[in-house]
Amino acid sequence: MALFMANAYIRHESEAKGCKMTQGKRVTAGVLLIGDELLSGRTRDINLSEIAKFLAPLGVAVAECRVVPDEQDRIVEAVNHLRQACDYVFTTGGIGPTHDDITADAIGAAFGQTVDVRDDALAIIEEWYAKTQTPLTESRKRMARVPAEAILIKNPVTGAPGFQTGNVYTLAGVPKIARAMLEDVAHRIEGGAVTLSRTVATGGLREGDLAEGLGKLAAEYPDVSIGSYPYFFEGPDGEIKRGTNLVARGTDEALLGEVVEKLADLSRSVGGKPVIDPPDAK
Amino acid sequence: MALFMANAYIRHESEAKGCKMTQGKRVTAGVLLIGDELLSGRTRDINLSEIAKFLAPLGVAVAECRVVPDEQDRIVEAVNHLRQACDYVFTTGGIGPTHDDITADAIGAAFGQTVDVRDDALAIIEEWYAKTQTPLTESRKRMARVPAEAILIKNPVTGAPGFQTGNVYTLAGVPKIARAMLEDVAHRIEGGAVTLSRTVATGGLREGDLAEGLGKLAAEYPDVSIGSYPYFFEGPDGEIKRGTNLVARGTDEALLGEVVEKLADLSRSVGGKPVIDPPDAK
Repeated sequence: MALFMANAYIRHESEAKGCKMTQGKRVTAGVLLIGDELLSGRTRDINLSEIAKFLAPLGVAVAECRVVPDEQDRIVEAVNHLRQACDYVFTTGGIGPTHDDITADAIGAAFGQTVDVRDDALAIIEEWYAKTQTPLTESRKRMARVPAEAILIKNPVTGAPGFQTGNVYTLAGVPKIARAMLEDVAHRIEGGAVTLSRTVATGGLREGDLAEGLGKLAAEYPDVSIGSYPYFFEGPDGEIKRGTNLVARGTDEALLGEVVEKLADLSRSVGGKPVIDPPDAK
Repeated sequence: MALFMANAYIRHESEAKGCKMTQGKRVTAGVLLIGDELLSGRTRDINLSEIAKFLAPLGVAVAECRVVPDEQDRIVEAVNHLRQACDYVFTTGGIGPTHDDITADAIGAAFGQTVDVRDDALAIIEEWYAKTQTPLTESRKRMARVPAEAILIKNPVTGAPGFQTGNVYTLAGVPKIARAMLEDVAHRIEGGAVTLSRTVATGGLREGDLAEGLGKLAAEYPDVSIGSYPYFFEGPDGEIKRGTNLVARGTDEALLGEVVEKLADLSRSVGGKPVIDPPDAK
């Protein structure tokens, strides 16, 4: 399957999810990843890329990401920065049942809202645990603590809900749960222009072979962001193979098509065998 | 091999790399990941965890991470924040030969240093390309542009050096190159207390089973950070398996040993079969 999706198709699919979209507008998101384990290197984050890929077809571009430890002051500071700087904010992590799960309190503090066990959240958790015959301990009830004015976000994986406070969406840290929660977020988003992305694999060329031509194209098409991504991998014979993918990103589908053809021409002009929108782009 | 390394062994190995260490001092690093591709979700970062794991045994703890696009103002702002807030800063990305590689200029701007092709950097690049019989294009010469007072960092993978400007270490974005550059950084670091990390696998328990006991232990041992990390994976039979790992982190080896035993006791008390420092901790 080609990686490239046409604008009309993306719009159709996104609106089917309930997302409102305003053509031409730039809408941004900030992502806040919360957890000591991300900064210690124990856990390698995958939520940022999953959130970005979920938001792109809704017409929301991730503009900034921060990673902070499980410390209330640091979370509050980052949330308050991001919710001013971006249209939407997505936080991951720190909403489980243990002592180091302090995200609800931090979000409450950032918004000046009290945080207590809320009946609607508790009802969801009680029902979930009754169904799965798991004892509802005091710690598990803690997961019903959400800011006073927050709107709950469904968690079809483990029951305990996420929550939306103003423009801040608080998701679980476990990627499987965070991703599932996003399905209950799309209909709350008012997206803008969709940034389309197309790739030209250059067939083993290096960045240095392409750089001069790329610079000229970037100057010629200021409304298209042109990036080059070198890669290295070990072939089956143990030899290190390398190559470069070119990526054009922008909101104008026709203009992007034009640039993609020029990127392919450029690759050919320096001896490459370009493939446009390869299914297995590295 | 056990994941746990004793403090004395870590110190010995780190000092062998040339790292100076001051026992008891907290030394921090900020990480700045630069690149549109990280925010678009096209590329999933692995540099943060690699940098954190490299620094930990040198007695440097990553305290904060930011991800910014290829925009000079945003890079400058983040660099200037992090170099004040942390003892060391590591940036990745944006030092290649193409038009969107603007990290050197941004670092120069942050430090008020001019950025030009520097003879020492150019000599390294010339020698590298002569050896690999690759044409030295104008674009490749661009990689010799570094801030006026920067100290070069060796790149044994592709030649073009990284550079150190004050307390800011600028590395490549390709993980293989970034990791190799760190080897020329260790001897420039003055580390502090090493944060040791030990894991107790609880054998299929859930966070909610453990949360109350964990809260008590966390209160009893304020100098040890106790975290719980739930995980989910699909078994060969297609069934979703779940479990929780407990992680104790701190600088006092004996205290950590005590806490690890209590975490194992806690797991047993709620029906788990704990394994301390399992080689394959999820």
